[in-house]
Amino acid sequence: MIIKTAILTVSTRGSKGERTEDTSGAAVKEIMARIGGKVVDYRVIPDEKNQIIAELRRMADIVKAELILTTGGTGFSPSDITPEATLEVIHKRVPGFEEAMRMQSFATTPHAILSRAVAGIYQSSLIINLPGSPKGVRENLEVILEAIPHGIKVLRGGLMHDPEHQFNPE
Amino acid sequence: MIIKTAILTVSTRGSKGERTEDTSGAAVKEIMARIGGKVVDYRVIPDEKNQIIAELRRMADIVKAELILTTGGTGFSPSDITPEATLEVIHKRVPGFEEAMRMQSFATTPHAILSRAVAGIYQSSLIINLPGSPKGVRENLEVILEAIPHGIKVLRGGLMHDPEHQFNPE
Amino acid sequence: MIIKTAILTVSTRGSKGERTEDTSGAAVKEIMARIGGKVVDYRVIPDEKNQIIAELRRMADIVKAELILTTGGTGFSPSDITPEATLEVIHKRVPGFEEAMRMQSFATTPHAILSRAVAGIYQSSLIINLPGSPKGVRENLEVILEAIPHGIKVLRGGLMHDPEHQFNPE
Repeated sequence: MIIKTAILTVSTRGSKGERTEDTSGAAVKEIMARIGGKVVDYRVIPDEKNQIIAELRRMADIVKAELILTTGGTGFSPSDITPEATLEVIHKRVPGFEEAMRMQSFATTPHAILSRAVAGIYQSSLIINLPGSPKGVRENLEVILEAIPHGIKVLRGGLMHDPEHQFNPE
Repeated sequence: MIIKTAILTVSTRGSKGERTEDTSGAAVKEIMARIGGKVVDYRVIPDEKNQIIAELRRMADIVKAELILTTGGTGFSPSDITPEATLEVIHKRVPGFEEAMRMQSFATTPHAILSRAVAGIYQSSLIINLPGSPKGVRENLEVILEAIPHGIKVLRGGLMHDPEHQFNPE
Repeated sequence: MIIKTAILTVSTRGSKGERTEDTSGAAVKEIMARIGGKVVDYRVIPDEKNQIIAELRRMADIVKAELILTTGGTGFSPSDITPEATLEVIHKRVPGFEEAMRMQSFATTPHAILSRAVAGIYQSSLIINLPGSPKGVRENLEVILEAIPHGIKVLRGGLMHDPEHQFNPE
């Protein structure tokens, strides 16, 4: 199974080229490769709400990415606005990804609960916010990795109903 | 204590009679009996948002069910719309039920975080979404079962203030 | 580090003086002192939505409290309305505080999931709902205590980017 994946790094400094290497984006790419994630698009943009919204829609509507992973802009800084931008795009929320990432990280890192990361579905694309640090990206993405392929399959509408499941699969 | 309970099975196939037995609805009934749940209404309807909304309101306003448990339509399938319908009905959200069901199930079942189930209060009725499979229904309902009677009692408005609790019980 | 803290006790009975001592508010004050919390404002008001909204805004806009902790009004009682009032004030939600408090308490207290407490950011102030009982206040506040000072620092906008964090700290 191949998962068409887009990565959106949200960072005002990164978008200005003040950092030479996007190690968080690289971490996403590396981990996703394990479950068949193929990076079909990648952008670094500043913490501007309207720009984030436009990129998420473009990656879903034009690029047809099945999975869009954002990094950065999920914290308490006055400029952090990625979750609010994501909420304006998605029409179905997936709180389970959010809860699992925070609660698993919280067991070892008390500051993990400061992440305001959001996850949800827009059209046929699953959008998940990840923290901005490579360590945070790794910790969080590992937690939900196993559930992603199944979610994408059901989202495609092509998953057969499990006979064990009466009426409805989830 | 008797809890007036309504069960709403959301399943397009079930509503067409393509499944002969609603084992998820039966699982709800069986588990609820343990805490005094008396099933006063039961319906199987398709994954149609407006129909779900109308049924939830009818079960609360006309049937006066104190607890409304839905099964099905909480996943990633394009037709799954039960949480969004529920969100349009409730005026107070109860995230604790949602979190507890997902996080407990997640400990043994990685796919459990794909459930987008919602819980909340509409008028004097507590509405809780459950997954569509009997296994999912059992796993999830067991987690929150102990807290339900207390919640219903407080919702009725008849619970005495616990003397240990200064000012307010919760 | 000193954290300018305001306490808002929401209790119709408390506001009428029917309880002589606000032990929940006292518990907040005592625990917050451990991380430099300095109580700059304290009010007891009834469970009236508009009054709660007005007090939260006043404590943030006029008193300039960096942290506003409410107690009470988060449960299933028909009059409980603190979360809904808080949701109308905040413009950024902080679900991690909510999840951590409920899930940690739930491990020992099944009724903990009945708390509908909300947390979020309004302007430069962090607002967190706590339960109404002193026991609930203690249990919940202890869980999130370690993360609060870091959150406040980032909210102030004065936190240096951690060199380990590429692009963005959270």
